[in-house]
Amino acid sequence: MSKEKSGLRALIRGQSAAFQDMLAVLSDRGRRFFDNLPYGRPRTEDLKSLCELLLSSRGQASKSALSTTILDGFDRLDASGRRLFFEMLCDDFSIDTDDVVEAVNEYRGAPSPDSLARLQKASEPRRQELFRRLNHAPEGTARLVDMRKKLVMLLREHPDLSAVDNDLVHLFNSWFNRGFLELRRLDWNTPAAILDRIIQYEAVHEISDWDDLRRRIDPPDRRLYAFFHPSLPGEPLIFVEVALTKEIAGNIDQILAADREIAAPEELRTAVFYSISNCQVGLRGISFGSFLIKQVLEELAGDLPGLKTFVTLSPIPAFANWLRTKREQMDADSDISKILALLNDHGWTEDQVTRTKLEPVLTSLAARFLTKEGNIAGVPLDPVARFHLGNGARLERVNWLADLSSSGLRGSYGVMVNYLYRPEDIERNHEAFANSGRVVASNSVQRLADAAPELSEKAVA
Amino acid sequence: MSKEKSGLRALIRGQSAAFQDMLAVLSDRGRRFFDNLPYGRPRTEDLKSLCELLLSSRGQASKSALSTTILDGFDRLDASGRRLFFEMLCDDFSIDTDDVVEAVNEYRGAPSPDSLARLQKASEPRRQELFRRLNHAPEGTARLVDMRKKLVMLLREHPDLSAVDNDLVHLFNSWFNRGFLELRRLDWNTPAAILDRIIQYEAVHEISDWDDLRRRIDPPDRRLYAFFHPSLPGEPLIFVEVALTKEIAGNIDQILAADREIAAPEELRTAVFYSISNCQVGLRGISFGSFLIKQVLEELAGDLPGLKTFVTLSPIPAFANWLRTKREQMDADSDISKILALLNDHGWTEDQVTRTKLEPVLTSLAARFLTKEGNIAGVPLDPVARFHLGNGARLERVNWLADLSSSGLRGSYGVMVNYLYRPEDIERNHEAFANSGRVVASNSVQRLADAAPELSEKAVA
Amino acid sequence: MSKEKSGLRALIRGQSAAFQDMLAVLSDRGRRFFDNLPYGRPRTEDLKSLCELLLSSRGQASKSALSTTILDGFDRLDASGRRLFFEMLCDDFSIDTDDVVEAVNEYRGAPSPDSLARLQKASEPRRQELFRRLNHAPEGTARLVDMRKKLVMLLREHPDLSAVDNDLVHLFNSWFNRGFLELRRLDWNTPAAILDRIIQYEAVHEISDWDDLRRRIDPPDRRLYAFFHPSLPGEPLIFVEVALTKEIAGNIDQILAADREIAAPEELRTAVFYSISNCQVGLRGISFGSFLIKQVLEELAGDLPGLKTFVTLSPIPAFANWLRTKREQMDADSDISKILALLNDHGWTEDQVTRTKLEPVLTSLAARFLTKEGNIAGVPLDPVARFHLGNGARLERVNWLADLSSSGLRGSYGVMVNYLYRPEDIERNHEAFANSGRVVASNSVQRLADAAPELSEKAVA
Amino acid sequence: MSKEKSGLRALIRGQSAAFQDMLAVLSDRGRRFFDNLPYGRPRTEDLKSLCELLLSSRGQASKSALSTTILDGFDRLDASGRRLFFEMLCDDFSIDTDDVVEAVNEYRGAPSPDSLARLQKASEPRRQELFRRLNHAPEGTARLVDMRKKLVMLLREHPDLSAVDNDLVHLFNSWFNRGFLELRRLDWNTPAAILDRIIQYEAVHEISDWDDLRRRIDPPDRRLYAFFHPSLPGEPLIFVEVALTKEIAGNIDQILAADREIAAPEELRTAVFYSISNCQVGLRGISFGSFLIKQVLEELAGDLPGLKTFVTLSPIPAFANWLRTKREQMDADSDISKILALLNDHGWTEDQVTRTKLEPVLTSLAARFLTKEGNIAGVPLDPVARFHLGNGARLERVNWLADLSSSGLRGSYGVMVNYLYRPEDIERNHEAFANSGRVVASNSVQRLADAAPELSEKAVA
Repeated sequence: MSKEKSGLRALIRGQSAAFQDMLAVLSDRGRRFFDNLPYGRPRTEDLKSLCELLLSSRGQASKSALSTTILDGFDRLDASGRRLFFEMLCDDFSIDTDDVVEAVNEYRGAPSPDSLARLQKASEPRRQELFRRLNHAPEGTARLVDMRKKLVMLLREHPDLSAVDNDLVHLFNSWFNRGFLELRRLDWNTPAAILDRIIQYEAVHEISDWDDLRRRIDPPDRRLYAFFHPSLPGEPLIFVEVALTKEIAGNIDQILAADREIAAPEELRTAVFYSISNCQVGLRGISFGSFLIKQVLEELAGDLPGLKTFVTLSPIPAFANWLRTKREQMDADSDISKILALLNDHGWTEDQVTRTKLEPVLTSLAARFLTKEGNIAGVPLDPVARFHLGNGARLERVNWLADLSSSGLRGSYGVMVNYLYRPEDIERNHEAFANSGRVVASNSVQRLADAAPELSEKAVA
Repeated sequence: MSKEKSGLRALIRGQSAAFQDMLAVLSDRGRRFFDNLPYGRPRTEDLKSLCELLLSSRGQASKSALSTTILDGFDRLDASGRRLFFEMLCDDFSIDTDDVVEAVNEYRGAPSPDSLARLQKASEPRRQELFRRLNHAPEGTARLVDMRKKLVMLLREHPDLSAVDNDLVHLFNSWFNRGFLELRRLDWNTPAAILDRIIQYEAVHEISDWDDLRRRIDPPDRRLYAFFHPSLPGEPLIFVEVALTKEIAGNIDQILAADREIAAPEELRTAVFYSISNCQVGLRGISFGSFLIKQVLEELAGDLPGLKTFVTLSPIPAFANWLRTKREQMDADSDISKILALLNDHGWTEDQVTRTKLEPVLTSLAARFLTKEGNIAGVPLDPVARFHLGNGARLERVNWLADLSSSGLRGSYGVMVNYLYRPEDIERNHEAFANSGRVVASNSVQRLADAAPELSEKAVA
Repeated sequence: MSKEKSGLRALIRGQSAAFQDMLAVLSDRGRRFFDNLPYGRPRTEDLKSLCELLLSSRGQASKSALSTTILDGFDRLDASGRRLFFEMLCDDFSIDTDDVVEAVNEYRGAPSPDSLARLQKASEPRRQELFRRLNHAPEGTARLVDMRKKLVMLLREHPDLSAVDNDLVHLFNSWFNRGFLELRRLDWNTPAAILDRIIQYEAVHEISDWDDLRRRIDPPDRRLYAFFHPSLPGEPLIFVEVALTKEIAGNIDQILAADREIAAPEELRTAVFYSISNCQVGLRGISFGSFLIKQVLEELAGDLPGLKTFVTLSPIPAFANWLRTKREQMDADSDISKILALLNDHGWTEDQVTRTKLEPVLTSLAARFLTKEGNIAGVPLDPVARFHLGNGARLERVNWLADLSSSGLRGSYGVMVNYLYRPEDIERNHEAFANSGRVVASNSVQRLADAAPELSEKAVA
Repeated sequence: MSKEKSGLRALIRGQSAAFQDMLAVLSDRGRRFFDNLPYGRPRTEDLKSLCELLLSSRGQASKSALSTTILDGFDRLDASGRRLFFEMLCDDFSIDTDDVVEAVNEYRGAPSPDSLARLQKASEPRRQELFRRLNHAPEGTARLVDMRKKLVMLLREHPDLSAVDNDLVHLFNSWFNRGFLELRRLDWNTPAAILDRIIQYEAVHEISDWDDLRRRIDPPDRRLYAFFHPSLPGEPLIFVEVALTKEIAGNIDQILAADREIAAPEELRTAVFYSISNCQVGLRGISFGSFLIKQVLEELAGDLPGLKTFVTLSPIPAFANWLRTKREQMDADSDISKILALLNDHGWTEDQVTRTKLEPVLTSLAARFLTKEGNIAGVPLDPVARFHLGNGARLERVNWLADLSSSGLRGSYGVMVNYLYRPEDIERNHEAFANSGRVVASNSVQRLADAAPELSEKAVA
């Protein structure tokens, strides 16, 4: 082992007196430190020492070098190494309760800007400052977003790590503040590298190839808008696809078909938001969607004064699952059960008779699911409904045979809905929903919901 | 008073049930709400109600409208209105100590991500969330920077308001994180609007007019670099002016003279940072200078491999004041007092004999001031010294008759110094200074300091 | 003399066989060839040889090197050297009449694409191809524009050189074709280097400093538009300054005053083109002005639908001279002569009585000058009138005491006029003027012209 | 027929007096004039009248409106209409020989700038000025390029139209002058619309899809450069694809393979220009290729100082045809004929024995074809050879089994060659080739050519 490396390792273990010499070495070589690891991957204890060093460092250059070294080390960890790393952050970089108690008492005794500041510092987990310092590394923000992506994937099995996650979310909410987001329209003149991401990130209606993409961004009656952030250049955060149409679209095929007709500009009355995709797992829970829809709505209204109606064409991804659960609990011999049993037939969409029987049942059940039954404690079960209703949209229309793709059938038996955004009602709808869980729906949807059959449960023997 | 306005005011005072209706009105009209004030300026109590409303609001659009309304209201306040506003934020939007105690106890009893989150929330003054929401207004960040500018001007007389200031600083440190700063070289091709700001903001060596500015940015041996932030487009945050020279410059005149010779590119060996100016009062205390110098240093080293030396040419703004105080305490009949008395003579710089007498005394005293006597508890009295030594620079040279402008004479009797930035020593110097307050100085400066005369105080009778 | 140089000179004189070797040398060293001239400046005969070499060369690299060498050589010539150079181009790079005759006969005998091509080639002066090849040098177009600038300054004394000038004009008309011009609005965000040119090039109402400039481009009711060409980046070709006003402005002071009021956007009804300046002497005679006005007019009409009237506020630069000549021929004792004699009084503009006497006489004479008397063979004597009437504008109004600057008084005794651009009349007016020399004027101007006093000449004894 | 239209038609036929009125109408409505054609397509006689009108017009606005009207009319013509249109330009917009004779005589009698100008004007076909005026229409240049595209397609059957073509080429040579071309590197960040054109225009080695394209522009050892012109934004004129490699590539597959290894930057020594495609049929004959190769060569040499060798990997598209002709004339029983007969076997490339027999014969014949036999009057038959040798490259190497695609086998039995560009030899090679038709080849290629078998013709009985 070379002198340099042994010195570094000694330093990390806190055994070295030659602090400043080591920092100089780190500053020069840190980046490649882990390249020469004698034993595969970084050890949690070494990363912990580096993190402690970073928190105690006062020099800018050493902060930057240390940050890069730590992030490089993290990148080399395997799944179990990452778990150990986050557990270390959870346990060793949290708060010290005794400190908090002491700080509270001090503040109580003599409230002052200083004692308040000390209290705040004591009750903030140390890892928050650690993350802020890691952000000083070149491309630090992007690397922390990537770190959180890996954390998010661990959360389900390791819920305690959400203490670490909360701190990242807190910082990201600040860094990805609305004021820093830049709305851009993407079209056929957009750099290919960005369009390539769109193809990858589209999560609702898959983009099959570049020709498909072009059909969604190039014609004069199609738009795609995305949010970008200065720290993630070239990386969309979220995007929405919009079709400009004469009337409210009730069918995804008529929007995506390769051979559809392009409407004349002067006939366009309606903007249909037919796909919204979040792009960054590492930013999950940092909400951009609401801003995006409203800003795009303003943009479109400004550009095209002829547009009068702004709606979505949305899936009901939780509907089919909910209905399956219901069906399992129902008396299999009831009339309604028999009708629903037609869904078991693989080719049901192609049989006219079957479709005619299913239509009134499924559409009314979908309306009921969204407006009433799907609500738990005033919150709709369906995530897409939650999103748009929470934004202040109104549930406007239920569409039959609206998405016959395999994912559309799997998620909601091909039913889709339109949520209507009326600028003048958005606040009112939002408050009704937020305060009392009331789902604002059009009269026709309400009537449809009222007409839905009862799904009575099996009598328990 | 119109229905609309009375409704709004009722709302603000919490008397209205028609919450959502009012929000809709506010969303439309909020911006112009204060335009129609029947009595001059907004009242603190109304602003407080609006702030409470903003903190309790859950809708995005209402947040944005309310934020704008509050910021508009703030803009209309006069000096005393602003003081009342900040006092209100200080008193009514702080923490609730009982809540903190309760949250501590809960966390102690059952540590979990949730109880930790509650503790953090309880110990964070409510105004932090308030500021985050105000940031959602269009141009929110710029308006909050402006708000803090006004707060900073009140702090000296109202030190308790620093509790509010701490929260803004906390947020700004996050929002103006290094990773979001963009370094730009400004030259004669830069938009005039930005150059105009440079003329205004130059704080060290005044820029007299556009010709003067051009001499500092257009010739091939002059550079000006500034940091920008995406939320303040067109507004430099801090900038540094650099002269590329053959040798270390010891005189500001030879840098700024209109008729100086322009050195051939291949002769340039030295970069002299001769002026650094912070631009935004509202960002005071958010440190950019250290990053700026180091990033510019890297940029220059990459561009011009011939550059070997990176120094400043800096004033010693606290020197003359320190010396005046000393002189008042000295025996007026001592030899050294008599020499220093020559400084009282208005035209001393033009008399060769006087200058010869003063040179050894003043330069050695300046060296001693910076390295020893000017230190209080290991921190130099001089702010410029504090900045560069804290960055890891070395005090390299003391220059006699280096700035004969009136501000140069007033601040330091025309003496200037060079601080040397040697990339390989920066960390070492910084740590020495940060940990033990040791001022790293060249041998020649140390010798000069050792040679300084004693400024013995008057014997007290 | 080094081997290399002697080889080069030998080559130029046609004595060398080692053609390709020399070209290689030239390609490498050509640029600095003239740096080492043993005797001051390039000789015409050497430049001629280089030009012949360039015309006979077939290699691209050698063309580029030779072009640069020739242009470098031209740059080193003094005034008499330049005259000799242009005379050489005039005499030695023209057509060969015998060749033309032969080509005509050949074409007559057997018209074909080939014989036509040969005829054209024979009747095109060889210098046209020479200029085209010089254009291959880096920045060739800009350097040829500069060459013509120097030629233009010689034309008055050496009218025969206009044969060379015609060829440059022919090429420039092609290269600076309207399709290649880019219209840009310049404002306070424009790079300072370009604004600096505007200050220099303004030829009508001098821009006194950067504050004055800012007043002309920054307020919302002021505009400045310029044409640029890809081959002269950073160099405006021509620009126009526009004031947006409520009514037709009759006075340059009310437009340029530092303390004028800024009109509210919704009140703006009129665009006043108050200054048009050509920037490049080397492009004299290549007409951009007509395009510029019309394109700016379209741009403004699109931006601000409230604008209803498009006028100029223009000087009458030839008026005072014309009147002075008239006065010399008049009977000094006539009434009108006596009134006009008041103009000899230096301070006449400040005396109310004088002004009252002069107003009807001068304004009516100006109207007559522009509409009738100033016409020679149907072409107005006044160049500004020629320009705007030729563009299809109408002479709309005569303004008294409209420009009291010294240049305004010297050129037209302070009188200014408005030319009105009505899009729907432009073609009609233009054709009337172009075909029959008819000056289209408003009724009020025509009445004014009719009312003008007779300037009867002295009776010859 | 409406009044307006009948007026227009009357105007065009020269029967109307209301010239200026009609122009005003045309200016407004011209664009849509042909939309209302009562009889399908524009008539040649009407287009002729419009062209005459354009040549006689003096107003800018009318020129622009007329130009657009004519170009719109041309766009509506079918193939035979276009032929008539070009014949009309050929016959009616040429020169008047009597005028030329008169002008020559006048110039002979009294040479002056004016008489010279008249001579030039007389000998320039009137259609040149017509084209210059058509260029004033919005997007005029692009529309004229498109017009020539259609002319080029007629030339083979109507060679007399080359008189018209010569005039367009003359103007395009001026407008697409090297000085106006902009070199851009295209990569994965280039707008998709431009990359889409590259896929369409690639003429040498087809780009199968976006993945294939990405492999040619995104990896660090691949480059694509194109020329653009300000009048054709978004339209590449010509582009070249470059592979950076360790050694001279002798096989197109190793360059294009999807699974090839990417070389480390520090290993790259060689730039291989493996595909050059002209994009615009309408600019055929306007040579950009030579500039492009040399400018890209300079760009690469500047970027990557490690590059030492610049070669092409080129097809020999005329080789197989030449050899087929030769074989038809040969004695079918000769040894060499028998070997060459193996080429008739469809799967010859996959049989090791066959390949071993063919290799020495085909490679040596290719070498001889390019260096000797393929020359007619000193000009190689092969167009690719003509291009690179004319640029000053050297024929460096013959590569066996270098392109086994169907087009590669069809054109040259899979043989490819490298042309070497050595900056220091380019001029010398070029002059040798241009003056004496000498093909500069490496020693190995010369030896190979010398070793080629004789292709003796059949003895005539």
